[in-house]
Parts: sequence; C-alpha cells; structure tokens
Amino acid sequence: MRIDDVLNSRLDLIENGKVKEAMAYSLLAGGKRIRPVLLYTAVKGYGLDESIADPFACAIEMIHTYSLIHDDLPAMDNDDLRRGRPTCHKQFDEATAILAGDGLLTYAFETALSSGAQPLQVVKAAKILAEMAGPNGMVLGQDLDINEIQGITDWEALQNIHHLKTGCLLSAPLMIAAVLASHDEDIEKWHEIGNILGLAFQIQDDILDIRLSPEEFGKSNSDIRNDKVTSVSLLGENEAECMMNTLYEKGRELIGNLDHFQSEEMIGLIDRIQTRKK
Amino acid sequence: MRIDDVLNSRLDLIENGKVKEAMAYSLLAGGKRIRPVLLYTAVKGYGLDESIADPFACAIEMIHTYSLIHDDLPAMDNDDLRRGRPTCHKQFDEATAILAGDGLLTYAFETALSSGAQPLQVVKAAKILAEMAGPNGMVLGQDLDINEIQGITDWEALQNIHHLKTGCLLSAPLMIAAVLASHDEDIEKWHEIGNILGLAFQIQDDILDIRLSPEEFGKSNSDIRNDKVTSVSLLGENEAECMMNTLYEKGRELIGNLDHFQSEEMIGLIDRIQTRKK
Repeated sequence: MRIDDVLNSRLDLIENGKVKEAMAYSLLAGGKRIRPVLLYTAVKGYGLDESIADPFACAIEMIHTYSLIHDDLPAMDNDDLRRGRPTCHKQFDEATAILAGDGLLTYAFETALSSGAQPLQVVKAAKILAEMAGPNGMVLGQDLDINEIQGITDWEALQNIHHLKTGCLLSAPLMIAAVLASHDEDIEKWHEIGNILGLAFQIQDDILDIRLSPEEFGKSNSDIRNDKVTSVSLLGENEAECMMNTLYEKGRELIGNLDHFQSEEMIGLIDRIQTRKK
Repeated sequence: MRIDDVLNSRLDLIENGKVKEAMAYSLLAGGKRIRPVLLYTAVKGYGLDESIADPFACAIEMIHTYSLIHDDLPAMDNDDLRRGRPTCHKQFDEATAILAGDGLLTYAFETALSSGAQPLQVVKAAKILAEMAGPNGMVLGQDLDINEIQGITDWEALQNIHHLKTGCLLSAPLMIAAVLASHDEDIEKWHEIGNILGLAFQIQDDILDIRLSPEEFGKSNSDIRNDKVTSVSLLGENEAECMMNTLYEKGRELIGNLDHFQSEEMIGLIDRIQTRKK
C-alpha cells in the first residue's frame, strides 16, 4: 500500500535506537490503514493527486498508532495483544512504549509540517489534526472513556465519547482533504460525516468484539474483560447493528450531497468498511 | 509572569475533565519558565514585541511539562515529587498522567499553529519545535537516557545525551525567535548556543542534585537513588562546576557575536541562570 511506503521513508529519517524500533514495530504492524485510505480517497474525489496527502496520511496514522500504544498500557486498558501480535509494552517494555507513543505523536507533526503544500494550507491542516487529536478531541474521549464511561447509562452520553474517541480521528483526514483542495466550505461537513462514520465504526467494533475470538479479532477483548459499557451492552446486539447500518447509510448520503466532490470511490470504500469482518 | 497569563488563557479553551485538571495541575505548578523566558528575551533582542511569541512560548512550556509528567511515571524515573508537590501520577493516577502528557503535547502544536505570524514562519517555527522535541531530539535523548546511559563511561557520550535531552528544548525557543524575526541565518547559531546552555544547565542540575535535599531542590533526587551516571559521577564535582562555568561563558560570547541581536538582556538572563540556587 502507498501508505506503507511513505511511512517507511519517514521512519528511515529517524536515528536508530530502541524507541525507533518500537515506533516501527507498532507503526508497521499492518492494521487497516482506514484513516490514510480515507484521506487518499478524499483528495482523489476532489481531483487532486494522492501525493499531496502523503505527509498528512503518515501523520494521521502515526497519531492513531500512538493512541493505540498508550491505550494498551497496563495503567490504561492493559491489553497484551494488538493486530495479532504482542502489544508494544509487551514486546519491549513500558518505558519504551510510552516514549514510542510520544515519539510518534511528535513525529506526526514534524511529518505534517514537512508538507510541500501552501504554508497557509499546511497550518490549517496541521491545526485540524491537533484539534481532532487533542484535549478537546481524542484525548478528551480517552479521558471520558477511562474516567466516566462506567457511570454511563444513556446512549447520548456514550455517543459523545465515541464522537471524541473515534470520530475525531476519522474526521481529520476528510477535513484535511477539503483544506488541501481549497474547499474550506466543506470542512465542517466532513467533520459531521467523520463523526457519523466513526460512530458506525465503533458500534461495528463493539459487535465484532463479542462475535469473534481474540485470535480472529487480532486484539484482546478487553472491553468484555473490563466489563465495559458499549453500544452492544446499552442497546442490545440487534439494535446496535441496525443503528450501525443506518449511520453508514447516512454517511453515504451526506457524501453524495457534496458539491465539488466525485463520491463514487469514497462510497465504495464505505461499503467495504461496512462489510468488514474484523 | 506573562507566560502564566497566556497559559491560563489557553487552558480556559479546554473542555472540563480530569485530564484537563491534571494538565493544569502540572502546567501551573510554577517552575522556572526558563524556555518561555528565553523566547521572550530573544524576540525582544531582535526588536520585536513579546506578544508575537506567546503561542510558541506556551507550546514550548507545554512540551517541557509533558516530558516531565511522562518522565516521572513509575515505568520511567518513578519520581514522587516535582516542583515541591506530588508528581502528576501521584496526585491523580497513572492513566490520567499519561493522558495529561499526551494532551499537553498535542495542545502544544494546536497552540503554536494558532499563531498569527506569517504562515510560512508558523510552519518553520512549529517544525523546529517538533524536530527538537521528537525522535531525533528530546525523545531520542530520553531513549538513550533510559536504555543506554548506564553503560556510558566517557564524557562525550554523556554530552550527546544531554544535548538531546536538555539542549534541544532550550535551543527551540532561541531558534524560533530567529524565525519570527526573519533572521533564518541565525537558526543554526542559536541551535549551538542552546546546546551549550543546555549542557551547562544539566551539569548545574547534577551539581544541585547532590548539594541540596529533595525539599530544597523541589524534586526527588532520583538520579542518586537510581545510581545514575551524571556529569558529577563522571567528572567529579569540581571539574563539573568548572566546565559549567566555561560553557555559560562560551554561550554569552556566541550571543555577543550575533549581528542583528541586542544581547544585553539575554546575557543578563544567562547570568541569573548561572547563579540559580535550585
């Protein structure tokens, strides 16, 4: 995949050391690469060449990977398995995993800021990335997920956590594509689409989490082990699945309504995400 | 101090939650604010108004604070005391401290990217910050500090770790001032000056670490407890102090040689750092 090549080139620019090794271990562990693929698909929908998106595709995947590494730590979800392999702190050690996460997060911005796009676009796009990943975005979602989710009994409150924890980082590539295409009027529309897709994606994860064994799913079922509130525990499996399908449909509809966007490839991508088996 | 006011305004923009509380707890714990003060002093030396530096001053202090929070974690230095108060994970919990560090690091870039300077300057300055803080800078220094420092027996190798771990984030504000002043030809000169001052500063820390009690120093003497290789253990206290003074003198000399820079205030600042008692 294109993203693997560009990630490898970026990793080559880092000095050797245990932390680099751990960064590469987690970053190159495969994974679905959904966020970079969303970005590449969106810039193509605007008629741009994929290459303009490379630094931001790398940056988003680095941020996603850092969030997994830190989320898996003993003090957080305490997961041993990720993408079918030992988690970063199991393969290395906790200190190295913390630093690998810090390194990926910082290097994400270094990479994004090396973009050859117009400086004003780079500033806007990198700022969106920081906003979506930061303490009013994904980090707030993690905070609520750790500190408040167990008290939650209504679907609205859980939805808010999913918007923050999952939706924000799925919105970021879509919003950034609008910036790179100089269609700033679409930024907020993509934000909403990303939130809808993020919620659908999270519900799907919750469903797969109970249907698959850890081996099939490629990661530990820590939600079940930790007896966590999820869309399935709150809505029941059938209603959750129904809502997931409605959300994916709504996402496709909103994408189809965008004025300057060729939506076929993006809609095909969402079809494939909707039918994923893990 | 100016920096406290601007940090407070930035914190006000974050949604309430336990992680925000932990971010504020560590960010507003006082501290010497050396990095923001270096930045403000440097932009004034170039004849600019301090306000142009506010977003970057915040960003650098946020990055410095995140590095302390993560460095203090049980898996890293395992320190209980910082700036005379319980460390972040002691005051809150480990998960919240990890997220507070992640939140500060991400918010540093969000803040830097909100700068009203010219977009090209913002890109250059934010990129310098990422380079200095990232896996070829401070994070690499942390990596070596954790994974390799115990095998070190020569001063050159220890110096390299200090350049990375301390020098990089002291260089960043000085280099950024040159960018904001459109004196890009000074960027590398400030990088060297920052490295020299960082080394002097680190040696001074090592000396204070053995001379002061934890209560006086305001943080745990974890270097001694962990039997860590330091400038003092390698060079002896007298030679270390002599080298520290030589380095501060060298820093002042290089600053005095800069062509477009009014150096008096910066040199006075270095005098005050050199005579600090903690």
